[in-house]
Amino acid sequence: MIDQLIQKIEEKQNPTVMGLDPNLNFVPRHIKEEAYERYGKTLQGAAEAFYLFNTQLIDGVADLIPAVKPQVAMYEQWGAVGIDVYVRTIKYAKEKGLIVIGDIKRGDIASTAKAYSDGHIGQVAIEEKQVTVYQEDFITINPYMGFDSVEPYLEDCREYNKGLFVLVKTSNPYSGQLQDVDLVDGSKLYEKVGSLVSKWGEKFIGKYDYSSIGAVVGATYPEQGQALRKQLPHTFFLVPGYGAQGATAKDLAGCFDKEGRGAIVNSSRGIIAAYRQPKYKEQFTEKEFVQAARMAVLEMKKNLEGVRS
Amino acid sequence: MIDQLIQKIEEKQNPTVMGLDPNLNFVPRHIKEEAYERYGKTLQGAAEAFYLFNTQLIDGVADLIPAVKPQVAMYEQWGAVGIDVYVRTIKYAKEKGLIVIGDIKRGDIASTAKAYSDGHIGQVAIEEKQVTVYQEDFITINPYMGFDSVEPYLEDCREYNKGLFVLVKTSNPYSGQLQDVDLVDGSKLYEKVGSLVSKWGEKFIGKYDYSSIGAVVGATYPEQGQALRKQLPHTFFLVPGYGAQGATAKDLAGCFDKEGRGAIVNSSRGIIAAYRQPKYKEQFTEKEFVQAARMAVLEMKKNLEGVRS
Repeated sequence: MIDQLIQKIEEKQNPTVMGLDPNLNFVPRHIKEEAYERYGKTLQGAAEAFYLFNTQLIDGVADLIPAVKPQVAMYEQWGAVGIDVYVRTIKYAKEKGLIVIGDIKRGDIASTAKAYSDGHIGQVAIEEKQVTVYQEDFITINPYMGFDSVEPYLEDCREYNKGLFVLVKTSNPYSGQLQDVDLVDGSKLYEKVGSLVSKWGEKFIGKYDYSSIGAVVGATYPEQGQALRKQLPHTFFLVPGYGAQGATAKDLAGCFDKEGRGAIVNSSRGIIAAYRQPKYKEQFTEKEFVQAARMAVLEMKKNLEGVRS
Repeated sequence: MIDQLIQKIEEKQNPTVMGLDPNLNFVPRHIKEEAYERYGKTLQGAAEAFYLFNTQLIDGVADLIPAVKPQVAMYEQWGAVGIDVYVRTIKYAKEKGLIVIGDIKRGDIASTAKAYSDGHIGQVAIEEKQVTVYQEDFITINPYMGFDSVEPYLEDCREYNKGLFVLVKTSNPYSGQLQDVDLVDGSKLYEKVGSLVSKWGEKFIGKYDYSSIGAVVGATYPEQGQALRKQLPHTFFLVPGYGAQGATAKDLAGCFDKEGRGAIVNSSRGIIAAYRQPKYKEQFTEKEFVQAARMAVLEMKKNLEGVRS
């Protein structure tokens, strides 16, 4: 799956992934009204507003980006109707030729991990029938429980040509509280996790020398990103933290290799709520949120070009 | 919320939590047939089979146990219809007077954690309306991303009288791969996590001297459990790993305090699929799965009594 992702990035000449993490404050008023009119100010109305918002954004930028990353929490909060919209968003994005990275960050014992994996990237069995459910291309997972909590996903990655991004060094302010602890062997915890991810991914290396088992490495810690790039030459990075979380293009330079490959960079709010930013507010009305998102993607693409060469 | 849990345990004289982690192999044929007849061998049919299974089990043992722990993965795998059954299972269990521990193991950056927390233990806002969605009493969470990924849950625990169990030392075979790494300060990672959980829970200590912010501590590592009990006198333990995962009552002794308090012990398969075990197969048919579950609960209660005094 990593080969397809890298091909899409080359094709679009853009390692930007649009994070579909809507919240109701980001959704323009006219879209919310349309959804509430149909379903009321209910869980279904809120979920439907997300679907309308997502599909218009996807239509507006699908030609510019290789992938989208829906954050399942934003849908899960509305209950079953939210999960339905999560599934429909994935389907819609794939129909538009985009790769879908499901940001689910699951992590559990093997029998439970198998249920998550079957549902999200594999197939569930209902008696003699095999059924696909979520169908993300990649999902994110949490490594805290160790190898046996990861193995079921690896099996499905092999069988269904899927990929993972395992949390290594996350973008949030307190990520260092555990991830940066010093181990007796002189390394940091996240470096140990990085090594494990690299090992787990050895049998998944594709034609660009990157593995379908990748790592989440936050843009907000540029030195660690650069060091991890050297430590893990075959591990592709999913990089959150650009834009709203504070990282700039310069901070990302170290996450790319000499060919300008090796990372895909997420921006959520910075794209999907671009119309609310002062710099775009002058050019675009709320109803032109898609055009604002397009402009933000083009700007991000340009900024990343500057650090990938 | 921890006070209510402890009260229920005292009332039932039983620190057993029934893990509602069904899989289709555990569900008796007559229940599956009923569900398939209504909905076909579909995602909805599978999900509905779980609901019928869960509600009959809850009816059968609600007088004996303080709490149930549905594992969300088992429902999430069926997509939206599965989540609907997860929500309905929680509702049903609460109506029967049981405390519900949602085993969701989420962990994400603050803005995302807030969405999970609002949905699961708080309230979501749809414009001026506040809506409750999942309504677990406790949820499990993953600490790998640090304090800011936990804080939104703490706020909701305070506001809505809820509780957490944070993964500290899990029950699975590879839990030590990261959790047992040696830190330069001489401690293990899980001990550090344990200290953090204790600190996060300081303001949530109730009348029994335990905090609503608890820890997941696997029964399969009895020595660590015993040491953690001493290290964390105010941290209540949710203990998985009993029965099917290999731990016995003796392994649990160290998780309880001198009053026989301090832990609630989960058994999933061992109860809900008791009818499939050789020792119960002779006494109960498949249709008598509830009676077998009841017997398994009573046996577990007795075994735990032996190590709590």
